Amino acid sequence: MMVVKVGGAGGINYDYVLRDIAIYRNLVLVHGGSHELNQISTKLGKPPKMVRSISGYVSRRTDRETLEIFNMVYCGKMNKMIVEKLQKLGVNAIGLSGIDGRLLVGKRKNIIVMENGKKRIIRDDYTGRVERINTDLIKLLLSNGYLPVITPPALSYENEAINVDGDRAAAIIAGELKAKVLVILSNTPGHLSDLNDESSLIRKIRRDNFEEAMSYAEGRMKKKIMGAFEALDLGVKKVIFGDARVEHPVTKALNGMGTVIQ
Amino acid sequence: MMVVKVGGAGGINYDYVLRDIAIYRNLVLVHGGSHELNQISTKLGKPPKMVRSISGYVSRRTDRETLEIFNMVYCGKMNKMIVEKLQKLGVNAIGLSGIDGRLLVGKRKNIIVMENGKKRIIRDDYTGRVERINTDLIKLLLSNGYLPVITPPALSYENEAINVDGDRAAAIIAGELKAKVLVILSNTPGHLSDLNDESSLIRKIRRDNFEEAMSYAEGRMKKKIMGAFEALDLGVKKVIFGDARVEHPVTKALNGMGTVIQ
Repeated sequence: MMVVKVGGAGGINYDYVLRDIAIYRNLVLVHGGSHELNQISTKLGKPPKMVRSISGYVSRRTDRETLEIFNMVYCGKMNKMIVEKLQKLGVNAIGLSGIDGRLLVGKRKNIIVMENGKKRIIRDDYTGRVERINTDLIKLLLSNGYLPVITPPALSYENEAINVDGDRAAAIIAGELKAKVLVILSNTPGHLSDLNDESSLIRKIRRDNFEEAMSYAEGRMKKKIMGAFEALDLGVKKVIFGDARVEHPVTKALNGMGTVIQ
Repeated sequence: MMVVKVGGAGGINYDYVLRDIAIYRNLVLVHGGSHELNQISTKLGKPPKMVRSISGYVSRRTDRETLEIFNMVYCGKMNKMIVEKLQKLGVNAIGLSGIDGRLLVGKRKNIIVMENGKKRIIRDDYTGRVERINTDLIKLLLSNGYLPVITPPALSYENEAINVDGDRAAAIIAGELKAKVLVILSNTPGHLSDLNDESSLIRKIRRDNFEEAMSYAEGRMKKKIMGAFEALDLGVKKVIFGDARVEHPVTKALNGMGTVIQ
């Protein structure tokens, strides 16, 4: 069993990724859509806005209107684009969001920000974190020959759709499914010690080197590293960060091209 | 087994529909999204355009860009809005489009139009018609306690997403599942002999009165009537057109409020 996460940043080549996915069996695909979301929400007059909570977390400000655009882009445009391409490749894919069949369930966060020296809870924000996976549903689909293609949002305990981090969702899916490998593909060769120098790729990170790995990480990569170590804690044997801009990205990652964490 | 189709026209009260759906078991829900699609595509600078083929069919002009917006609205916004509401009502819904798991497969149409006295095939149009249903997938989900919430697009035989009529898709789903009843809910009390007079409701249509039923029908209603008779031909016992603007619309339809065709 393998879980592959393909990001939603610009520059990702979905044809390369999906052609490679099509040669594997017993695989679960998780995807993002942030780049497309930024574009569509801007077109719809609702440009992206990030908020920094007092604990230092940066997340997309997700009011109800943003959540609806999020659903349109992640569940509508991206998920169905991927399912259609897989069907063309002869793979019987089924696209699901986390709210379908309670696939990804988690906690809606209270985002607390500092404004003019005062703490304020943003009441109408729908952001959260995955805590539970409906592994029965994933196994039911796999055992009947379908490839699950999974996307945020997740479902909160109060049954609201919530925007969750896709990398960490993939990590928990891999953990709960007892996957051997989690491959996280994005628009970089892997974890770089210098964000601006692609030749600074870190080839291996040992399991006990979380602090050091985090010290190099910036922005999105921090969440990816956290996800990777969460997956290892849940029993996944190996996490690999690979490059989604090259041909055969999954096979190359499995062959050690990228950053291997174990 | 019952199949309910809820339309996508303006004025439909989804809370009424879904609260009523939640009290039934062994049910498949099919939905549309045309009103929302018109609004979002206009906002995105791609206002709706209808084409009339030389055989008299009117359909939404669906080039690739329109198809992507279609996916966003039907699979993203509408489908997930319905699934989220059902989850809030305690129903473990799973939203699927016709391309997921090859749920709805059919033929992509060649739309031929008359232009300046000459016939022209519109090459880049993705419109079609459902011919096959993956009933195994629907039964697999039902038997595991999930309520399938199904939306166009369908998948063409060439594995492209295609815009298909939701009423006729629902009719074929009901037929292939050997459903006893197909309930088609929209923003009207049923089939009216005078489109502009809601009191002109036709209460009963006999199975052998297709021609007469069609003679009163205009626009969208023609496809609904065709779908209804297709479902009867496929073995569905009863088709009811009901009002999606009132409380308990499914129960009222089953109690004979609306137009009953059998």
